[in-house]
Amino acid sequence: MTGFFAGRTLGDLGRDLRSGAETAAGLLDRALESIDPSLNAFVTVDAEGAAAAARAADEELAAGRDRGPLHGVPVAIKDIVDVAGLPTGMGSAHFDGYVADRDAACVARLRAAGAVIVGKTTTHEFAYGASGDTAVNGPSRNPHDPSRISGGSSGGSAVAVAAGMVPLAIGTDTGGSVRIPAAFCGIAGFKPAYGAVPTEGVFPLSVSFDHVGVLAATAADCRTAYRVLTRQPQDALAGHDDLRVAWVEGAPVADEVAEIVRGLLPGAPAERVELRELRRVFAAIQDSEAYEVHAERVADAPELYQPATLDRLRRAGETPGWRYVRASRERARFAEEAAALLRRHDVLALPTVPITAPEIGQEECALGRVQPVLLSLTCAWNVLGLPALTVPAGTAGGLPAGLQLVTSAGREDLLFALAAGLVP
Amino acid sequence: MTGFFAGRTLGDLGRDLRSGAETAAGLLDRALESIDPSLNAFVTVDAEGAAAAARAADEELAAGRDRGPLHGVPVAIKDIVDVAGLPTGMGSAHFDGYVADRDAACVARLRAAGAVIVGKTTTHEFAYGASGDTAVNGPSRNPHDPSRISGGSSGGSAVAVAAGMVPLAIGTDTGGSVRIPAAFCGIAGFKPAYGAVPTEGVFPLSVSFDHVGVLAATAADCRTAYRVLTRQPQDALAGHDDLRVAWVEGAPVADEVAEIVRGLLPGAPAERVELRELRRVFAAIQDSEAYEVHAERVADAPELYQPATLDRLRRAGETPGWRYVRASRERARFAEEAAALLRRHDVLALPTVPITAPEIGQEECALGRVQPVLLSLTCAWNVLGLPALTVPAGTAGGLPAGLQLVTSAGREDLLFALAAGLVP
Repeated sequence: MTGFFAGRTLGDLGRDLRSGAETAAGLLDRALESIDPSLNAFVTVDAEGAAAAARAADEELAAGRDRGPLHGVPVAIKDIVDVAGLPTGMGSAHFDGYVADRDAACVARLRAAGAVIVGKTTTHEFAYGASGDTAVNGPSRNPHDPSRISGGSSGGSAVAVAAGMVPLAIGTDTGGSVRIPAAFCGIAGFKPAYGAVPTEGVFPLSVSFDHVGVLAATAADCRTAYRVLTRQPQDALAGHDDLRVAWVEGAPVADEVAEIVRGLLPGAPAERVELRELRRVFAAIQDSEAYEVHAERVADAPELYQPATLDRLRRAGETPGWRYVRASRERARFAEEAAALLRRHDVLALPTVPITAPEIGQEECALGRVQPVLLSLTCAWNVLGLPALTVPAGTAGGLPAGLQLVTSAGREDLLFALAAGLVP
Repeated sequence: MTGFFAGRTLGDLGRDLRSGAETAAGLLDRALESIDPSLNAFVTVDAEGAAAAARAADEELAAGRDRGPLHGVPVAIKDIVDVAGLPTGMGSAHFDGYVADRDAACVARLRAAGAVIVGKTTTHEFAYGASGDTAVNGPSRNPHDPSRISGGSSGGSAVAVAAGMVPLAIGTDTGGSVRIPAAFCGIAGFKPAYGAVPTEGVFPLSVSFDHVGVLAATAADCRTAYRVLTRQPQDALAGHDDLRVAWVEGAPVADEVAEIVRGLLPGAPAERVELRELRRVFAAIQDSEAYEVHAERVADAPELYQPATLDRLRRAGETPGWRYVRASRERARFAEEAAALLRRHDVLALPTVPITAPEIGQEECALGRVQPVLLSLTCAWNVLGLPALTVPAGTAGGLPAGLQLVTSAGREDLLFALAAGLVP
């Protein structure tokens, strides 16, 4: 089954809404009809609240008040992000019964732009995993093969967009949690620069690396949503003909993924970047920060965690403090190296994930243990806080692979301009 | 034996130098004669280099070039601070044979002000201890009773000033390492605000808390040296009649110390401050940062440490990273509370150390284990980065106790003004 929004961009929807061919209430009905429970994309659907928002959007448009490109558009929100009046479940039994009393900052900005919040999407428990298959409400499933993982932790958001249930979803990305499921599900995903979108009202995983990001079918739609979330005007995207693009090499990549992805940018020079060292820095800092958030819960109610999450947290809690301090120092050094690299090149290109989506429950792949392999090309850009975009690059054996593009904060439009010219 | 500089202020010395009653070369000779090896204040004496500097100072003064209040004045430098051409021993066998090739920033500023560097003073090994009795060159000894500790880690600097060997010494203070030995030896010691004096060229203990400070017989002389080190003009000290002073209560204090110290400021109101919690924050951060500096040395050559230092480092290395993260969060909260407290009061007053100097090797005292008791009233002001001054408050059984005064960064002169009016 393919949902209504597959193949429809925000631009298409906006035209239909403004021509009268469609209404916000109608788009919401399409979204609700498109939700396929077997994929487990949504953990909460707010049909009633969304209907009220859609009616208000329609009334405003009829009265001549136009809030811009998200006006009347159905949007899904990852279930670690607070939406006033709805449960925030975090994919965990720990937050059973918790209902948020106010919107997260990013949700408030979406509402102010006229978006219709359809519901909450399945998250890897506490966003602490890149596979998307560990949650009290079960795994989100890959629309390209439901026996395979969606990727995570924003798995439900990626599935909801990829399967055409909604045209846009909010995710969070601490080590790749927007980009990995976007790549596995064959859509676009954008992690802005660190701090560009406020994380207020988002449950923390690792405060040094937590980012709010967006998932949509196309890079152009990610840009539209990103500009709403950062309160920037919707300027036309300028072309950039002579971008200096370098391929980043720094971790093993499966042959079929390398072939698909590298074929998109033939001739670009290669740069070796110490992604393995950055992964160590990422792990030491994330482990310490994540356990700090959970220490009391692990002590008081360990049985409420999914076993894999509890196991991971307990190991994280054993990271010594001096490793955190060392990693923080190394992070500063890597930031200088990255800045130098981004003076030589406008954009860095690499695969988003070195493999295509493994089976649900699969722990090993040809490149090693699945979890670190999933993060091996994404988490460096969280350590460095750089904007990173993934766009669909094609499929291998029916499973999508993503091309990841990275640049300096403030130069995000280079990513969108480059993506606009790519033909997978 | 009491050295030449006992009872002589920087003002006295400056007058004698400028009247021709004394020369820099003569002051240096007095210093060298005053050094009592039995107190183990100095680990290196640079008679030759100092003589050259003294001659140059005399020639400059004779030629009408006057560099200000430290011109021609003998100064001692703690042996974790680099002085070009001299060994920096760190109190450790690890740095046997190491000779610094350039001056630390603070030493360069002293030289630019005409000071004569006499030599290097005994430090607790790597400045990692408040007792001053653990060093490869043996303990520095309290001039008031050589069987007792000087306090540390800037023990040699405090002894050199207290015994009149020099009128001024440089120390460092990460948890109290200037103030504790100053209080135990009956002199003044000032830890400036965090970052006020550069730490470049100083071996790190815990970078979040490391401060360069000064030790002298009087608070006024500390102010003079502080202004040289921060390149501030030597403005006259303004009087402050209506200072709002509060007593800080937050850790047990021995009766005899409380009596001496509180008697200096009768009538001031008391405020309870969570010094115990700040001490936990201090320990988690210092432990992690200190071990990060030493991790490779502990792994490669543990036998080169004094046993007590090695034991302490190994325990420090076990502090979990999440405790470091938690402590960093709590530190931010305490900083807000301290700022509020310092809006209600101009100056906070408390004893510098809750006890008088224990015997060398003594591990327990009436208030508990000696090491944490020593730090219990000082380390909070390192966590908060606030300027803190200790001044002699009197003696109990012949052993000195210190009054500690704390204020906001930028208001240091309140401390010196208050101290100027106190009569022990």
